[in-house]
Amino acid sequence: MGIVHKFVGTEAAYDWEEVPEKEVGGPPEVIGVSGKVLVGPLDGAPNFRIRYFRIEPNGHSMLERHPHDHGIFVLHGRGIVRINERLVEVHPKDVVYIAGNELHQFSALDEPFGFLCVIPPK
Amino acid sequence: MGIVHKFVGTEAAYDWEEVPEKEVGGPPEVIGVSGKVLVGPLDGAPNFRIRYFRIEPNGHSMLERHPHDHGIFVLHGRGIVRINERLVEVHPKDVVYIAGNELHQFSALDEPFGFLCVIPPK
Repeated sequence: MGIVHKFVGTEAAYDWEEVPEKEVGGPPEVIGVSGKVLVGPLDGAPNFRIRYFRIEPNGHSMLERHPHDHGIFVLHGRGIVRINERLVEVHPKDVVYIAGNELHQFSALDEPFGFLCVIPPK
Repeated sequence: MGIVHKFVGTEAAYDWEEVPEKEVGGPPEVIGVSGKVLVGPLDGAPNFRIRYFRIEPNGHSMLERHPHDHGIFVLHGRGIVRINERLVEVHPKDVVYIAGNELHQFSALDEPFGFLCVIPPK
């Protein structure tokens, strides 16, 4: 197959060629979270997915706990990652591993907070 | 678990807290390739690994083919990715998916070429 998704965005709005939006669910109070599937089923990738998420300033993801794990690489902005009862401020190039069944949430500080998120296949 | 590997490097030399070196094998002509395991067995990650690779200017990885796939996100520099008989020049934030058993090789152009590489667990 061999697929290249060229970056076609700007620093203010990341975007790639031929990459689908990731639908972001959650209750109405979860605002300002969007995502794209950089590597996933449309690429024929059976073993993992790589998604890009962007959280608008002062927004946050849902507080959640699920069996699958997350590998995170921060791309832009500053955010707070909650892992169980721990809060950590993270910056570009920081790496976070959240194991399965850990309670977690991502919050943006004063700029759009963007990161890669790797998960196993569904 | 919940592990944070803070970035402690510079633009000229990426580094993270508590991240092991990735041993890079290959024949003697493969020069100037180094790597780090950002998420892997030491983090207790059972489902995927995230590695960082750096290829020095004009260096290249081994030309190889293996059953596992690669998800690539370019971080710095410019490189050439060979996928089977195709050569693609890639830049920061470009995404590449290399399926299992595709012949592939990464080469740096005139600057250090750095990228994330996701693989399934061994």
